[in-house]
Amino acid sequence: MAAGPIRVTVWNEAVHEKTNKTVQEIYPHGIHQAVADGLRENLGEGVRVRTATLDEPEHGLSEKVLAETDVLMWWGHAAHHKVDDAIVERVHKRVLAGMGLVVMHSGHFSKIFKKLMGTTCALKWREAAEMERLWCVDPSHPITEGLPEYIELPHVEMYGELFDIPAPDELIYISWFEGGEVFRSGCCWRRGSGKVFYFRPGHETFPIYYDRNVRKVLSNSVKYVAKKTDTPYGNGAAPNIRTPLNPIRAAHKVDESLHKH
Amino acid sequence: MAAGPIRVTVWNEAVHEKTNKTVQEIYPHGIHQAVADGLRENLGEGVRVRTATLDEPEHGLSEKVLAETDVLMWWGHAAHHKVDDAIVERVHKRVLAGMGLVVMHSGHFSKIFKKLMGTTCALKWREAAEMERLWCVDPSHPITEGLPEYIELPHVEMYGELFDIPAPDELIYISWFEGGEVFRSGCCWRRGSGKVFYFRPGHETFPIYYDRNVRKVLSNSVKYVAKKTDTPYGNGAAPNIRTPLNPIRAAHKVDESLHKH
Amino acid sequence: MAAGPIRVTVWNEAVHEKTNKTVQEIYPHGIHQAVADGLRENLGEGVRVRTATLDEPEHGLSEKVLAETDVLMWWGHAAHHKVDDAIVERVHKRVLAGMGLVVMHSGHFSKIFKKLMGTTCALKWREAAEMERLWCVDPSHPITEGLPEYIELPHVEMYGELFDIPAPDELIYISWFEGGEVFRSGCCWRRGSGKVFYFRPGHETFPIYYDRNVRKVLSNSVKYVAKKTDTPYGNGAAPNIRTPLNPIRAAHKVDESLHKH
Amino acid sequence: MAAGPIRVTVWNEAVHEKTNKTVQEIYPHGIHQAVADGLRENLGEGVRVRTATLDEPEHGLSEKVLAETDVLMWWGHAAHHKVDDAIVERVHKRVLAGMGLVVMHSGHFSKIFKKLMGTTCALKWREAAEMERLWCVDPSHPITEGLPEYIELPHVEMYGELFDIPAPDELIYISWFEGGEVFRSGCCWRRGSGKVFYFRPGHETFPIYYDRNVRKVLSNSVKYVAKKTDTPYGNGAAPNIRTPLNPIRAAHKVDESLHKH
Repeated sequence: MAAGPIRVTVWNEAVHEKTNKTVQEIYPHGIHQAVADGLRENLGEGVRVRTATLDEPEHGLSEKVLAETDVLMWWGHAAHHKVDDAIVERVHKRVLAGMGLVVMHSGHFSKIFKKLMGTTCALKWREAAEMERLWCVDPSHPITEGLPEYIELPHVEMYGELFDIPAPDELIYISWFEGGEVFRSGCCWRRGSGKVFYFRPGHETFPIYYDRNVRKVLSNSVKYVAKKTDTPYGNGAAPNIRTPLNPIRAAHKVDESLHKH
Repeated sequence: MAAGPIRVTVWNEAVHEKTNKTVQEIYPHGIHQAVADGLRENLGEGVRVRTATLDEPEHGLSEKVLAETDVLMWWGHAAHHKVDDAIVERVHKRVLAGMGLVVMHSGHFSKIFKKLMGTTCALKWREAAEMERLWCVDPSHPITEGLPEYIELPHVEMYGELFDIPAPDELIYISWFEGGEVFRSGCCWRRGSGKVFYFRPGHETFPIYYDRNVRKVLSNSVKYVAKKTDTPYGNGAAPNIRTPLNPIRAAHKVDESLHKH
Repeated sequence: MAAGPIRVTVWNEAVHEKTNKTVQEIYPHGIHQAVADGLRENLGEGVRVRTATLDEPEHGLSEKVLAETDVLMWWGHAAHHKVDDAIVERVHKRVLAGMGLVVMHSGHFSKIFKKLMGTTCALKWREAAEMERLWCVDPSHPITEGLPEYIELPHVEMYGELFDIPAPDELIYISWFEGGEVFRSGCCWRRGSGKVFYFRPGHETFPIYYDRNVRKVLSNSVKYVAKKTDTPYGNGAAPNIRTPLNPIRAAHKVDESLHKH
Repeated sequence: MAAGPIRVTVWNEAVHEKTNKTVQEIYPHGIHQAVADGLRENLGEGVRVRTATLDEPEHGLSEKVLAETDVLMWWGHAAHHKVDDAIVERVHKRVLAGMGLVVMHSGHFSKIFKKLMGTTCALKWREAAEMERLWCVDPSHPITEGLPEYIELPHVEMYGELFDIPAPDELIYISWFEGGEVFRSGCCWRRGSGKVFYFRPGHETFPIYYDRNVRKVLSNSVKYVAKKTDTPYGNGAAPNIRTPLNPIRAAHKVDESLHKH
């Protein structure tokens, strides 16, 4: 990854913070600020964080902003359908070109996550303030650095299997819920030249983004998915390599009419 | 899988067969018929094959046809953009619900494959009639049953890496090309309750779908990806499980206003 | 897989059945017989089952028996160290050559499983007769055919993460335990030309191998891991391919002295 | 990973350097020194490299040395059988506890690699000084940082599939060989709390460890597999968690006689 600080953009639809009193009390400056604070707390000079929200022009995700973003963090819940398809395309292209993406909690139903996964990303859910315990199942993974073998959260919204995702390339955390469900809560996938991390914890009505361990996982994940310095990735180009790298013995006349992709 | 024969629908855009003389000579009844013949040859009574093409109403892929399809095979090259988005959605939903999908050669750029993968599915290519050798890298896989350690095809269109796909859940064949490239040519992914197999060989201007080994791989793959008898898969439903399976100790009042998905 | 019935050998150390009254009452004919009965119940004519135990000559696993075995099922708990290393080598070689292996419950600490995994296969455990619920996380998998989205077992010995195994090639079931742990309970790996399935449920002092769903999973797994008809797998041979398949331009004199493997 | 430099130990059996003139000319100070130089060249102050060889007491791999090693690099070819089993056990335990391991070329047949893989690790080979081209198939991977889409090596010993390894957790490079074979040449696996990288290029009679790109890959891999600062990994302990984390309703008396692991 680049020599300087990792440039992170924390995106939030920021809807419930405006409409719901409980949420306002827990996240007076918005969930994005709590998440941003957690990154600064753990990564200090190693990170430069900005935020962006749905209401800004281009949802705060202009070409310029994305070009200066090594990792995009995504929070959405109530307003997935209000995110402009053109912006989703733009983010998608940037992820494939190497920008890291961290999707949090209800972001599982965001357009960008569903587009990258190719599945419905559906799950079961229940809000009963039950207990969650996230068990580490991959102690070799840098996202688990400095963390205990499990993380406990006293009150959460439950997400249960089947979580309709492609099998993760790396499965790092599995959640246990008091009410009887399990969930693949910390998952990585590689897409193009980019890396995607999904992390389940979070909810507007619980102070989860102030939790020390949750902040540590998110901070570790930012380092893990951060864009590499360079990549030969072609981003959708399908080049015709007319001159072979090694000699070909066959004599053959190409029928060009076929190749009008 | 179901007790009776596997019900296969071979789909073909069937464009080049109408416009190109070389293609007409090699595949006088269309690529779909050559593929269908290969399945019947290998699977006999174990399979019931029909075909469908772009020009038919609903591209031949009505709800009824798909409901009676255990495995859909996909050939497209020149007319990916002419496939109706609503049909793509329909096929996507069926795959997630368990219908197997076998994507052949230039189908890598089809809408349905790109939607299931979440990536550009781009690759390098060259048409120089060079030699291809597919090496088996997973001899445990049922798709390799009855096949030698490698398959040779004397004249092919080359596809080269980077093939922009998610890392396959199962990588079965890797191709060597005379001109210097390699390619992940036999790949499986699981999506929802369905299985997807991509197989590289094929091209309109080479008689590849008459090759004994290619036909064997495709026939094996039909058995491998065939729809299971049943599945509890929810296909996008996100049920609220109000009553927990096990007791929860927390007293908590849910703020219903948040949950208007 | 072969045309005839799948030939299964159920292996059991059969120690606790002789020494413990509770175990004798639950499994009067031994755990191996209960497992064998479950396979016959589900697979009928599709399977031919025999059993083998530690006390037999060569532990009942002669070359002849293994040569006639498509799937070996493994139960051990108290006497892993009494299994002869030469027999372990023999079984290992057979698995790599294509024989399926189903390892049950405490078999996680068997020599053959540890040898195939390359890790300690350690885990947490507790015997408190707590409840277990196995959640399906891959509804596309043939091992889940005909099974509900979860399986409940009222009283079990708990196994908890970290389960020190290589990341499974296919993760099919995750267990929830009443006491607060989770576990990757249904896992597949490919090794050489063979397939390995680990299934957690089972214990000598609970009647788990009479459970309808457990028997269904085991029966499905037998079909899934069964040996293919043939394989080009070399089983450890490292052949020197002196004559290249394609021409090489370099003039080079090999220094043979290096190649005394 | 730790704040200071990564502590690397490059191990070499160092046999052919003593017996073969060609090897002496190419690697006058031994392969281990050429590898060590490549790391220093790329990582500078970020790495502290020492070497160890077969002839030293405990093969240079005392408990103390391993305790001070974040990454062990392994070269062996002619003398795998001379490596003491006790040392192999020691290295195995350290890898599971988090020490990174980079296995080079003919190290595929080393005891430690086979023990971690659980398979024969066999492959095809030919020494004809043919050309190799390594294609990157995962541009998202940090091991590919700063590297082009392919790496060419003019003269190599060929390794061909089937490479009898478990499917890699991460497949990064696939080799094309002039003589017609392919090979999975850059592969990662996670084992316990440790990471393993296998990289194919190298041979005593070719100056491959002076190649700029090969050195870059090895240097990147050292950063990738380096030991984390800490881990809750238990290294084979199987603790009995008598007190559950959450309440269990069942009344049950444990039969202690069963639990004499």
